[in-house]
Amino acid sequence: MSRTAEGQLVRKVLEGYGQLTREALKGWLPSKEPRRYLYDLVADYPNRGGRMLRPGLCIAAARVFGGTVDDALPAAVSIELLHNALLIHDDVEDESDERRGKATLHRTAGTPLAINAGDSLAFLSLRPLLHARAKMGALMALRMLEELDRMAEGQAIELGWRRDNVLAIDEQDYLLMVLKKTCWLTTILPIRMGALIGSRDEIDLDRFVRFGFFLGTAFQIQDDLLNLVGDHARYGKEMAGDLWEGKRTLMVIRLLEQSNDTEREELRAFLGCSRTERSAASVERVRAMMDRHDCIDHARALAHGLAGAAQHEFDLLSGDLIDGEDKSFLAALPTWVLERA
Amino acid sequence: MSRTAEGQLVRKVLEGYGQLTREALKGWLPSKEPRRYLYDLVADYPNRGGRMLRPGLCIAAARVFGGTVDDALPAAVSIELLHNALLIHDDVEDESDERRGKATLHRTAGTPLAINAGDSLAFLSLRPLLHARAKMGALMALRMLEELDRMAEGQAIELGWRRDNVLAIDEQDYLLMVLKKTCWLTTILPIRMGALIGSRDEIDLDRFVRFGFFLGTAFQIQDDLLNLVGDHARYGKEMAGDLWEGKRTLMVIRLLEQSNDTEREELRAFLGCSRTERSAASVERVRAMMDRHDCIDHARALAHGLAGAAQHEFDLLSGDLIDGEDKSFLAALPTWVLERA
Repeated sequence: MSRTAEGQLVRKVLEGYGQLTREALKGWLPSKEPRRYLYDLVADYPNRGGRMLRPGLCIAAARVFGGTVDDALPAAVSIELLHNALLIHDDVEDESDERRGKATLHRTAGTPLAINAGDSLAFLSLRPLLHARAKMGALMALRMLEELDRMAEGQAIELGWRRDNVLAIDEQDYLLMVLKKTCWLTTILPIRMGALIGSRDEIDLDRFVRFGFFLGTAFQIQDDLLNLVGDHARYGKEMAGDLWEGKRTLMVIRLLEQSNDTEREELRAFLGCSRTERSAASVERVRAMMDRHDCIDHARALAHGLAGAAQHEFDLLSGDLIDGEDKSFLAALPTWVLERA
Repeated sequence: MSRTAEGQLVRKVLEGYGQLTREALKGWLPSKEPRRYLYDLVADYPNRGGRMLRPGLCIAAARVFGGTVDDALPAAVSIELLHNALLIHDDVEDESDERRGKATLHRTAGTPLAINAGDSLAFLSLRPLLHARAKMGALMALRMLEELDRMAEGQAIELGWRRDNVLAIDEQDYLLMVLKKTCWLTTILPIRMGALIGSRDEIDLDRFVRFGFFLGTAFQIQDDLLNLVGDHARYGKEMAGDLWEGKRTLMVIRLLEQSNDTEREELRAFLGCSRTERSAASVERVRAMMDRHDCIDHARALAHGLAGAAQHEFDLLSGDLIDGEDKSFLAALPTWVLERA
């Protein structure tokens, strides 16, 4: 399949399964009082759209093992709702301004009500899963809770680095943090849950961990790159927001390794500021430093390497999977994560 | 039984079941990395103690229906862990300074890491329940999630009143808010879950809602009273903290109803401030206004009436319950909630 055809296929599958998930998801969002202080806020992020990668992965993984869309839909809805709940809290923790092209929830509703809405949505998110499968529900909910532990660990590490202005971080630390923070919930859990549903708990789910890890890290690095060099209208968050937030992205870590003493001092001071203390000029200076040291190119190269490794892992798995559009979709994802704008 | 004997019995049962719960609970708190940024924070509130009312209610309710302590312990642990998770987020939302005699978690760890630790503990809290009962686990987890919805609704209403400086609130609005915010999770859920476990899902759980509602509202009003007139060392939160936070307690609502135009204007300005804009002098003035209008006495009288109603509801239920210490404990609670210091 050509790259163009692959890209079209990924978009088509994501749109198709995304649409089904969006419709099913609406049924789980309460439409009652208190609206203004709770349920309007709970529904805000889910209604903003999103690329629906997680539900797409879950449903496709179920189907390549012989499951149906209906089998996998409750899990897909649970994962997507949970993802949105965590975004609300992430945005508070990161002091982010924009999400999916609009102001973040805590900017519009205030931090207290936003945190509470995130809690409500997180609790809500487990319901489709528990309702759907009296027998497997508890097992799958437990598995989801385990992935959530890892996610909170990754988030804690990243927030801790920022709070304490930690500079002694290398690429391995970064990849471990991303494995925990991003991969378990974004790629590994949806694929494993889909495979669990499709195979009726008959296969060894650990086989998907490596594919999910490589795919997820490539995805995260690309996401961080788009934050620096992407198109604001399509990206939906404030440009260079990661720099404003002092996030330890791969590019920042590379810069810390490559910078001379003077630059490193400037960087330490910049990263040690609170968000409000940073200025457009200081963000611009760090951004220029990154260009001087080819940090963007370095991150791109690493993302390509990781996507290649994901491709390789998928090839090892693919003999056991049912041929068809879902399998082609999964196979095309490593290329797609790098090419999406 | 004399009031003194009743008080002793309640303390003895709470200590006994509390101790068992605390020991079982420790096994669910991860002892691994990242400690400093996550698991030390997750364990902080549970390790500070607390009166263990929720686990006590759950275990006693199981036993009066023929269940054992071991049957009920996983649910008791889940409820207590969840309660602690929600306290972390409540303290952020309320900008509280103290919890159980020490600085609140977000004051020591910073808000981002505290929110994340609360998420981690909330996810963790469902595990004992799901693990314990392959068959009933999903059902009970679902029930817990439903109570959580109501809790988030109550919290949303209270936070919304504060954010928008709503003054048109009467006692009925207050009681409905407390039913949602406090009663479902503090009294109704533990009792219902215990009864569900003890009776093996054989009884009509709605019978406990009224008992739990009256007990829980009496408990909340007493808690708010202790915040104004209690002993700081035993209470464990900053005194008059509710006033500093602009919380709509029953006493504030009474004051809004009873105040003259000048007082009402002062109150509107006071409640409309942010926490940092309030001064010790302005808190003191509102506190004195409450005394002028007998708001404390009014709240005490209402709490007594509610505790009496709880007593009455318990009498209606008690014929079906197994006699013994657990039943006496439940019967003594309406008096105890008012007399605890």
